[in-house]
Amino acid sequence: MENRSEKWNFEENKKVNASSVSVRGVYNRLMERVKNNGDKKPLISLCRVDPTDHPLFRTSLEASDAVATAVHSYNFNCYPPTVGLPQAKRAIANHLSADLPYQLSPENVFLTIGGTQAINIILTVLARPGANILLPRPGYPHYESRASCCHLEVRHFDLLPERGWEVDLDSLEALADDNTVAMVLINPSNPCGNVFTYQHLKRFAEIARKLGIAVISDEVYAHVTYGSNPFVPMGVFSPIVPVITIGSLSKRWLVPGWRTGWIATCDPHGIFHKTGLVKNIINYLEITTDLPTFLQAAIPEIIGKTKDDFFLKNLNILRETANIFYDLCKEIPCLTCPNKPEGAMSVLVKINFSEIKDIVDDIDFCVKLAEEESVLLLPGVTVGLKNWVRISFAVDSSDFVESFSRIKAFCLRYSKMP
Amino acid sequence: MENRSEKWNFEENKKVNASSVSVRGVYNRLMERVKNNGDKKPLISLCRVDPTDHPLFRTSLEASDAVATAVHSYNFNCYPPTVGLPQAKRAIANHLSADLPYQLSPENVFLTIGGTQAINIILTVLARPGANILLPRPGYPHYESRASCCHLEVRHFDLLPERGWEVDLDSLEALADDNTVAMVLINPSNPCGNVFTYQHLKRFAEIARKLGIAVISDEVYAHVTYGSNPFVPMGVFSPIVPVITIGSLSKRWLVPGWRTGWIATCDPHGIFHKTGLVKNIINYLEITTDLPTFLQAAIPEIIGKTKDDFFLKNLNILRETANIFYDLCKEIPCLTCPNKPEGAMSVLVKINFSEIKDIVDDIDFCVKLAEEESVLLLPGVTVGLKNWVRISFAVDSSDFVESFSRIKAFCLRYSKMP
Ligand SMILES: Cc1ncc(COP(=O)(O)O)c(C=O)c1O
Ligand SMILES: Cc1ncc(COP(=O)(O)O)c(C=O)c1O
Repeated sequence: MENRSEKWNFEENKKVNASSVSVRGVYNRLMERVKNNGDKKPLISLCRVDPTDHPLFRTSLEASDAVATAVHSYNFNCYPPTVGLPQAKRAIANHLSADLPYQLSPENVFLTIGGTQAINIILTVLARPGANILLPRPGYPHYESRASCCHLEVRHFDLLPERGWEVDLDSLEALADDNTVAMVLINPSNPCGNVFTYQHLKRFAEIARKLGIAVISDEVYAHVTYGSNPFVPMGVFSPIVPVITIGSLSKRWLVPGWRTGWIATCDPHGIFHKTGLVKNIINYLEITTDLPTFLQAAIPEIIGKTKDDFFLKNLNILRETANIFYDLCKEIPCLTCPNKPEGAMSVLVKINFSEIKDIVDDIDFCVKLAEEESVLLLPGVTVGLKNWVRISFAVDSSDFVESFSRIKAFCLRYSKMP
Repeated sequence: MENRSEKWNFEENKKVNASSVSVRGVYNRLMERVKNNGDKKPLISLCRVDPTDHPLFRTSLEASDAVATAVHSYNFNCYPPTVGLPQAKRAIANHLSADLPYQLSPENVFLTIGGTQAINIILTVLARPGANILLPRPGYPHYESRASCCHLEVRHFDLLPERGWEVDLDSLEALADDNTVAMVLINPSNPCGNVFTYQHLKRFAEIARKLGIAVISDEVYAHVTYGSNPFVPMGVFSPIVPVITIGSLSKRWLVPGWRTGWIATCDPHGIFHKTGLVKNIINYLEITTDLPTFLQAAIPEIIGKTKDDFFLKNLNILRETANIFYDLCKEIPCLTCPNKPEGAMSVLVKINFSEIKDIVDDIDFCVKLAEEESVLLLPGVTVGLKNWVRISFAVDSSDFVESFSRIKAFCLRYSKMP
């Protein structure tokens, strides 16, 4: 076998190494650092956004019951239909339509294994030789990883901290060309924590229309807003430009482990049908793996029976933690947060390197913080913004206060001031 | 927008159209034919292999309870670790090791969303420019679809009906070259219904060793055997050649809708580690979507608590239906089945076109049978064997007898004999 060992060399598979920029990959690597530090302090992770890391955030009994009932019914142990169970598609269509000026049909909805698989599917069906896609920077790095996997060229437009993380709209036209297949917006925004206004979304949609490009609206954090801007789905503007909406139960229902998501085509003029996109999605679904059937079957009850109280309670906790965060952050000179978060579950903070010593960049900052204080933050470079850090605040407020006192001590230790 | 409408043309995305050969795609298309026939007779599907289509095949209460308990515990609503929950990996490692001469460790196991995602992951990480893979013909068409998706060239070796569907071993060496990355075997065999002997598997493994090629052993039907050949896992031969085993709860536990599968590397010499394959799998898992966490958590109980009685009962039903099938088939002159099935849940039958008229090929046969008799079979061309049909017998025996009386009437109607 030795004489043909060149066959066994898989190192060159670049495609699958795109993961070097995944949140999960970075999280795993930081966890290793904590493990090596001899368990000085209990770990506090503000790195990935998984609210269930904290017992405070627990899904509703109605939702859990819906899943258990579907399992025990024995009616949903079969393979699911290619495009998903009709009753689940209908429930999601109705749920989304409540915020739209028109009614989506079940045919507009495709069930996916989390927002993650929704992204995988959409980027795969959009990819073709030479194509490019416009992504926000900072953004959610899974788009970059997957685009590189399917050879879709990425072009970034900036989100501007000094303008509340709004899109640098003026740059869009110069970025796009005849090979641009879509532009992506994440609203409410991970990683920035802002919520886009109706007016700003409208201008984004108008530019997409002018350029002849579809909009992919990542609304995995839909309705997770607790500031002054209400959530407006991009589908509202689908009469002027066709919109692909990505959604998920993960964050709002506090069940990222259920891996339940969807794609919805908001496309009143049927453009995606005419151009073959819908057919391509269905064809691709035939060769991908599916959301377990009983989870699909539970969707109508999960969405229909979870009470408003549940959502309100969680939003109140997030609002409170956002306030605490903003106040604590001001007390740490080497960190700057340009805007108080108003939506989603994370925020970006700038590290002022002019005020600290012996730390070279955001990665170094996060590694040292993990090793010395057992606090995990996500290096900004992972989301496209070097020398910033992303902080998840979907955590218990006492943990959050404790983590900030450790971050403060850490920053003081590395401060240039005496 | 019209003036740039060329952008909206997605028809050219060949990659995602590989699905034209999926079992699911063909099943969906045949279902359309039945729908159009005015519901003359109740539908009997022997097309896809989903035992749960029939109430006779129902998973164990222990398995359902394990899932419901995991959901209700609220401990598994979080994102899973990249490579899967350790307790689930350990349970699968132990389960597989019971049939191996050595012990697998949890690190050898990766959890996947069904055998389907296991195939997707393995083919993606093996693919590199110019690479090819050896697949059995007839086979399971998902391999072909996925290989075409990731630009992995497919080369087929034959399974020989006249030799009980054994591999045409003599052809293997001529097929392989320096760019061959693996050879796949499905045992127990879908679509053929045979079970490979220890001796035959050993010779297959020895050829792989000689060629310096890894073996991918699809054991989605592991232990589903009811004839004279016992199930032997390919991992038994991993001391001579590294083996990637693909497994799933779908068939043996009667829960295809749970989408729970795995990849196990049977590799006592650590070749997959040294050559970077394991690292590539982990990297790729970081950017794929995962099996829901609570399903992972339920695996130890599902595997540990399902009783032998459950499996025995199901095997007895399959054995009986296989016998019924074989006898009924002999009564239909235009069909020939070379071997009585001994494993898995389907069998291949040859259509003798010399004896029938007005039917051009296997697809035409299946379409007309669907339209006229509401019986669905899978055209052999889907699994690589034109003018054969695949028949699933994971069905209630009375349904099965009824379907064969309709098939018989159909064949008589098209018979050349008066
Ligand atoms: C913006 C964004 N899109 C998509 C996803 C993936 O969603 P899911 O966790 O449901 O797979 C996430 C998860 O964090 C996200 O933040
Ligand atoms: C040979 C073979 N491999 C893999 C699979 C896929 O397994 P799963 O249904 O668990 O995704 C199947 C399903 O029919 C199969 O027959």
